[in-house]
Amino acid sequence: MSTALLTDHYELTMAQAALHAGTASRRSVFELFGRRLPEGRRYGVVTGTGRFLDALADFTFGPAEIDFLAAQNVVDDTTLDYLRDYRFSGSIFGYAEGDVYFPGSPLLIVEGTFIEAVILETLALSIYNHDCAVAGAASRMTLAAGGRPCIEMGSRRTHEWAAAAAARAAYIAGFATTSNLEAARRYGIPSAGTSAHSFTLLHDSEDAAFEAQVSSLGKGTTLLVDTYDVAEAVERAVRIAGIGLGAVRLDSGDLVAQAHEVRAQLDALGATSTRIVVTSDLDEYAIAALAAAPVDTYGVGTSLVTGSGAPTAGLVYKLVARADDSGALVNVAKASKNKASVGGRKCARRRIDANGRATAELIGVGEAPGSDQDLDLLVELVRDGEIVGAESVEVARERHRSRLAQLPGKSQRLSKGEPVIPTLFVDEHPDPTLVIGDPR
Amino acid sequence: MSTALLTDHYELTMAQAALHAGTASRRSVFELFGRRLPEGRRYGVVTGTGRFLDALADFTFGPAEIDFLAAQNVVDDTTLDYLRDYRFSGSIFGYAEGDVYFPGSPLLIVEGTFIEAVILETLALSIYNHDCAVAGAASRMTLAAGGRPCIEMGSRRTHEWAAAAAARAAYIAGFATTSNLEAARRYGIPSAGTSAHSFTLLHDSEDAAFEAQVSSLGKGTTLLVDTYDVAEAVERAVRIAGIGLGAVRLDSGDLVAQAHEVRAQLDALGATSTRIVVTSDLDEYAIAALAAAPVDTYGVGTSLVTGSGAPTAGLVYKLVARADDSGALVNVAKASKNKASVGGRKCARRRIDANGRATAELIGVGEAPGSDQDLDLLVELVRDGEIVGAESVEVARERHRSRLAQLPGKSQRLSKGEPVIPTLFVDEHPDPTLVIGDPR
Repeated sequence: MSTALLTDHYELTMAQAALHAGTASRRSVFELFGRRLPEGRRYGVVTGTGRFLDALADFTFGPAEIDFLAAQNVVDDTTLDYLRDYRFSGSIFGYAEGDVYFPGSPLLIVEGTFIEAVILETLALSIYNHDCAVAGAASRMTLAAGGRPCIEMGSRRTHEWAAAAAARAAYIAGFATTSNLEAARRYGIPSAGTSAHSFTLLHDSEDAAFEAQVSSLGKGTTLLVDTYDVAEAVERAVRIAGIGLGAVRLDSGDLVAQAHEVRAQLDALGATSTRIVVTSDLDEYAIAALAAAPVDTYGVGTSLVTGSGAPTAGLVYKLVARADDSGALVNVAKASKNKASVGGRKCARRRIDANGRATAELIGVGEAPGSDQDLDLLVELVRDGEIVGAESVEVARERHRSRLAQLPGKSQRLSKGEPVIPTLFVDEHPDPTLVIGDPR
Repeated sequence: MSTALLTDHYELTMAQAALHAGTASRRSVFELFGRRLPEGRRYGVVTGTGRFLDALADFTFGPAEIDFLAAQNVVDDTTLDYLRDYRFSGSIFGYAEGDVYFPGSPLLIVEGTFIEAVILETLALSIYNHDCAVAGAASRMTLAAGGRPCIEMGSRRTHEWAAAAAARAAYIAGFATTSNLEAARRYGIPSAGTSAHSFTLLHDSEDAAFEAQVSSLGKGTTLLVDTYDVAEAVERAVRIAGIGLGAVRLDSGDLVAQAHEVRAQLDALGATSTRIVVTSDLDEYAIAALAAAPVDTYGVGTSLVTGSGAPTAGLVYKLVARADDSGALVNVAKASKNKASVGGRKCARRRIDANGRATAELIGVGEAPGSDQDLDLLVELVRDGEIVGAESVEVARERHRSRLAQLPGKSQRLSKGEPVIPTLFVDEHPDPTLVIGDPR
């Protein structure tokens, strides 16, 4: 399916005006970055890269798209002719998926003609703004959960296709499984699930419901024990499934108190290996509050898919350089109040100290900042129109784990704060103390 | 494209266990409703109905879906055989799209066998929770804007497919146009757009950029005037396009002060019919703050697509009745703390007083509440598996306008408050003072 119309109208009218003016083919550099992190967040999580590359491969204007644009007079015939043959032919560099990012980090650098690069703006931003928002929340939840697995189960609280993307972002940021079957099919993420309250209510008694579930799904299943009375349900669950019962799930009430009560009850019944899954309106703070409770698994829905207070990552896509009449690249930046940006094609490295800890995000304009000892952050994603940076979600997931481990310890704090490392803009000079700008 | 895997894993394991237990074919009634409105909201806006009916038509398990479920051992062969032939064959009633809703309003009532109705849960909730969240914010923004048109331009701040759905929801709730081309194609919503800062920066001067745009898009276009200096840009815009210039757009800074300055400047230049479009991080409060400023059009992005603080509507889908062994329908409801619900198949009417104002939402269990003088709220959407309730977004948009006009005046307040009319649960009795429950 074409992704070409997942685009703002004005991208195409700009294309038309630039074609008309003879400036459409000017060599241009666009940058996707955030001026700041969501309020109080200490780091961002790069996600969306793989989805963007997939969407780029499908960004073509076929007969259906052209006919629509023609019928609605969105652009003129000259522009339609251009779009009919459109394939992105430039190059794209970017932060690798799963890495962390900070204010001013160039998550994507798109190089090509103005026209071919500008019309990718909306699609690139939609994907990165959504996926980074979810992953930023998911990473904090994973940290709060310590080693306990988190299950993504927010599909019902977000748009149906956003749900699959959210599951992918959460998995990269450390979640163990998802409830979403489309995410499992499309991205190979492990999916899981057993039953809801409706299943218990369908049957004439809780006994009948538990017997039906255990009989069909096995005693390793998870029984939901809060439809009526929790203590009665736990007793019933162990009686029916035996002490080998996989898990019980709590979805309401005071989870801390209940977890202790249910654990004691399970242990007294001999079901010492039966796990406790909690799933009621959890966010990173509620997860942290359960750290000392005998909980084995967290199921997270609403707060995950809505970015836990930051439902969009606030990333922007800006022209930072373009050729003049002679073909020479000129750095550009707008001067709008509170929205000024740093012009020029960026390079990015992360300074890592002798203990393996990140100490600064170095952004160079034109040339690489810092030294070869620093960690290079930009990888090649697209070369002359060919996608060369595709990788699996497993690779991105492992990268997130390792890059997060390099951040200073305060990255693990849930309280609001500044980014854990500063972003230093370095103008063609290896000394990062020469800061030329701050995107915040 | 099949929508069947936009579904939580546990819907299918419940299907398997119910098939195994012989309870899958029990006649069941599910209800989609909200226990409360998003915090402080005075009414909700029903949206998603049309998208849900479209998605229902595509809810089939084809070879690709069955092969995936088999390969991953999500369910057993008996269940796969059932899913292979799945078509929803029951009936669905619901609030008409564009109507308002309140706590406990039954937005959808899905009647069928347990198995055929339960597996629609995730898809129905995803669509309604997303679309109602956006429409709830959009309706307030439209009210705040008075008669001035609002442009939806939030595509870049949300998932790429959610963007098209958000544009649709906003249009139903009163927005005039969208920037999203896919929404324009798919739902026939008017789209609009002209240019971004990158277009100005592409050119060697603001003069060259404005000339290029006016030359190609006509003098009726909207010129973006805050890339460098606003006053200079306004002077330049009128010089190049003439006093027939369509509009200027402000995307940064103090919009109230700037709108006055730019209006005075435009008028002094003779461009008295040139409009002023403002587009910088607006929400309903910022729109209201601009009520006395000489602004003609509002462009709204981030806060719209993220529901202006309420990115999901918090709707749930619950089993409220099901047959017993004899085939008789039994009302059911879980007892979980803070999540209790009212069992039974609901009917819904809205009481309208002699002045044409709504005074209460009447929810009956089993029988219609109130009298024939009250407004019936449930319409037939699906009859024996056949979709009978499809209608255009224009019809839903007009319905929203008229139903909103019936609400008490305090519905127009942006401040946080209680729902503008109470929800009264009436148990098989025409007197709505006999309240049997409150979903909050």
